[in-house]
Amino acid sequence: MSDFENFLDYVGEINDLLCTINILNWDANSNMPASGAKTRGMQLGTLSKLAQERLTADEFGKLIAKAERAVASESKSSYRFRMVEQTREAYDISRRVPAALLEEHARNRSVAEKVWVQAKANNDFAQFAPYIEKFVALNQEMCAAIGYGDGHPYDAMLRRYEPGMTVTRLKTMFAELKNRLKPLLDQIVTSDVQMPIEILKGDYPADQQRAYCIQLAEKLGYDIGRGQHADSPHPFEISFTSNDVRITNRYKPDILAGGLFGMIHETGHALYEQGIDPQLARTPLATDFLSQYAVGGTSFGAHESQSRLWENQIGRSRQFWKLHFKELQDNFPTQLHEADAEQFYRAINHVEPSLIRVEADEVTYNFHIMLRFEIEMGLLDGSISVNDLPDVWRRKMVEYLGVEPPDDSRGVLQDIHWAFGQMGTFPAYSIGNIMSAQVFQAAHSQLPDLAVNLAEGRYRPLLDWLIENMYRHGRAYSPDELLVKMGGERLNAEPYLDYVEQKYSDLYQLR
Amino acid sequence: MSDFENFLDYVGEINDLLCTINILNWDANSNMPASGAKTRGMQLGTLSKLAQERLTADEFGKLIAKAERAVASESKSSYRFRMVEQTREAYDISRRVPAALLEEHARNRSVAEKVWVQAKANNDFAQFAPYIEKFVALNQEMCAAIGYGDGHPYDAMLRRYEPGMTVTRLKTMFAELKNRLKPLLDQIVTSDVQMPIEILKGDYPADQQRAYCIQLAEKLGYDIGRGQHADSPHPFEISFTSNDVRITNRYKPDILAGGLFGMIHETGHALYEQGIDPQLARTPLATDFLSQYAVGGTSFGAHESQSRLWENQIGRSRQFWKLHFKELQDNFPTQLHEADAEQFYRAINHVEPSLIRVEADEVTYNFHIMLRFEIEMGLLDGSISVNDLPDVWRRKMVEYLGVEPPDDSRGVLQDIHWAFGQMGTFPAYSIGNIMSAQVFQAAHSQLPDLAVNLAEGRYRPLLDWLIENMYRHGRAYSPDELLVKMGGERLNAEPYLDYVEQKYSDLYQLR
Repeated sequence: MSDFENFLDYVGEINDLLCTINILNWDANSNMPASGAKTRGMQLGTLSKLAQERLTADEFGKLIAKAERAVASESKSSYRFRMVEQTREAYDISRRVPAALLEEHARNRSVAEKVWVQAKANNDFAQFAPYIEKFVALNQEMCAAIGYGDGHPYDAMLRRYEPGMTVTRLKTMFAELKNRLKPLLDQIVTSDVQMPIEILKGDYPADQQRAYCIQLAEKLGYDIGRGQHADSPHPFEISFTSNDVRITNRYKPDILAGGLFGMIHETGHALYEQGIDPQLARTPLATDFLSQYAVGGTSFGAHESQSRLWENQIGRSRQFWKLHFKELQDNFPTQLHEADAEQFYRAINHVEPSLIRVEADEVTYNFHIMLRFEIEMGLLDGSISVNDLPDVWRRKMVEYLGVEPPDDSRGVLQDIHWAFGQMGTFPAYSIGNIMSAQVFQAAHSQLPDLAVNLAEGRYRPLLDWLIENMYRHGRAYSPDELLVKMGGERLNAEPYLDYVEQKYSDLYQLR
Repeated sequence: MSDFENFLDYVGEINDLLCTINILNWDANSNMPASGAKTRGMQLGTLSKLAQERLTADEFGKLIAKAERAVASESKSSYRFRMVEQTREAYDISRRVPAALLEEHARNRSVAEKVWVQAKANNDFAQFAPYIEKFVALNQEMCAAIGYGDGHPYDAMLRRYEPGMTVTRLKTMFAELKNRLKPLLDQIVTSDVQMPIEILKGDYPADQQRAYCIQLAEKLGYDIGRGQHADSPHPFEISFTSNDVRITNRYKPDILAGGLFGMIHETGHALYEQGIDPQLARTPLATDFLSQYAVGGTSFGAHESQSRLWENQIGRSRQFWKLHFKELQDNFPTQLHEADAEQFYRAINHVEPSLIRVEADEVTYNFHIMLRFEIEMGLLDGSISVNDLPDVWRRKMVEYLGVEPPDDSRGVLQDIHWAFGQMGTFPAYSIGNIMSAQVFQAAHSQLPDLAVNLAEGRYRPLLDWLIENMYRHGRAYSPDELLVKMGGERLNAEPYLDYVEQKYSDLYQLR
């Protein structure tokens, strides 16, 4: 075998381990009885450790060095070059993080998750605080180990999840979001216009919702023959190769919207993964070494951009329900018999500042993220202490959204991310929102028939364009590179802000 | 950590890898779309390789040596002593098998399986022959590497699956079976007595069968809260710890018996695994290093003894259906409304020499095994050539069962075992039959109320006794040791033959 093939062979085994971790997690969330959790945790621990050992092995360094020589004269944007370049980056970063640090992180995590569940149930922040404290210390160590030059410790975290992104860029981005979304939100909350949200409530049996949702996913292009659907308490998408991409969802029997948009959201993630060139299977371009996921999407934010594009730009559009409401109504004839497409469109786009991130609408969502970004930065640079967290949270909620959590369960304890010790991934949600608008705009400018196709329910041309320009490349290009290749600019909030302003000014009859 | 703890820690990780392989296989058989098969194969290959590397590592040898010193003064029948002793045996055997040999075996297997499927479909033995040829050569090498002293090469294979078993013992055992079962079968086939098998045929919707079968499994003691049920083309039981033991089954909509007894059979396997002391999780006593399964049953044969005990001694007894037929009838009121318990009992115990092992009854089953045992021995010692296989098969079928396969698909190509390159596991089916009768006899002699309890549908006392005397020990004791501990003899065909003769003499009104 050539040096490059030896390199790929080694990476392939790391990818196998990461895919296996995905399968263990899929099973844990969709099939496993609760009694299996303890040994499953051991199995996951062993697999993670083995993946990490292989990622940081001296032997791997030698293989990478040889592969670097093999591709040295090739184009810097070729897949082969990128494979080696990205692996080198991941290898160097990983080698700088001591194994003992990762083990301590994992140990803290295995307890923190359970404590977080209890603390959230009991509204007892003090119970959880020591674990965040510990994670902050460990993550600070990790940032120092990874390195962030003259920047912010948070930059080190971003290198793991969001190639090309920095605190400086994020600060500008969130400032732009705030500058235009805050006045918009102020107008909306003082508006007299009401959305008919009551039509979403009623008797919506889970089985019927599930059946319709699966149809919808397939309509948008999800190939369930190369995947599977299951129920789980929290919806997610997970893949073990682009030929086996699964989605889960949950259905509340007394409300329609959650299940519906959860499904379209996960479908967006799945379309991305199913669209990756099968030739990239088991290569670095389908392996996220640094966050230990076997995924093909090029960053957390880019991945989120596609769940958002399908969920929001398509699924929450007037166009979409003009076309499909009849069908939805046929599936729920008694529940929806008095509603019409326009009412449904208005109901699903109801804006209301609320306490809970995952229930937030398109206008308020980014404020939830901004708050978390600022808090995570403060924790890592030491300007916010863990003890102050609940107060900081409440203050920022009031400042950004005008609502104050009555307890910490609905405040600082609401997300699981910190119980995993994860800091640095929240910005991906806002990056995704912004990027979804840029990508959708690019598609419109390059596909003259797109509007007509969407109006007539043909989603395949858009999907094909996304596959051709984005999905198939896997992790070969950074989000910025992809956006530029599509004929646009690097990440830029303007198209997203234009979209939100226009849509909600219309809905709430503003100006 | 102490030397013994270090040893357990290392074994725990091997167990994690083997459990993970089980989960990959479970998923492949119950959830995975066909398109995921290619990368799943790579994932399984990588995991097997890693497990094998760790099993044969120098480091492991040192840990075992230290653990041997740690337990040297302890009782030879203590769990701790057994853990080390069995690991030493597995380590030494594994170290003697070259990695290159295993890899070639795996490579041949990855192609052979597909070729076998085609060859079976096309009735084309010649297409498959080269792969068996290769496996015979590789398995001969493996036998030589493992070693078999003055014995038969097959003895080396038996060391992997059936502790304490030898070709000499098996030859005696099969001779005993043949001596008493052949005359019995001859009487049955010439008997005028007919079993009312037509009542098993009809419209038995899969959903209804599944619902009843799951009830039945739970009635016998399967804790579905510590497991799961799924459909799969071939029924199997698989575990990832004694707290997560799953079963699959298949239901033919035009016949009742297959699904029913498939389910009871897998339930028997599951009861064994669920009964293993949770303290043994991840230890050598819940890890079958040599066949790369993470199972707690002490041998293939011992495991099979429990599926057979529940399926045959309980599930095919007159007693059982006297008690439960009404309930079955209530589940299939139109289909079974003219039948009664005695008819049903007779129908499910119909004896008929047939071509296919998996469809065989209690009287003919062992002949199918005998034939395979003799052929595998002949292949390994060179007295049977691969080219002669179809003829040898036909000749032996006529000799033992009086039926001749009209084609190789229903002859030598029927089982998947050789497509896996597996030789040496078939005897486990007959060992299981024999052992099931010995265990059931021991239970009767030690539980005076057993007959009454079974007659009144209380299965828990039997299960508790089995857990106490067999299941909880995991792999700590050999099948022979377990039988002796239960107050009986080492493996001995007599109780089984008495049982079969008595049951079928009654059913067919012989003598």
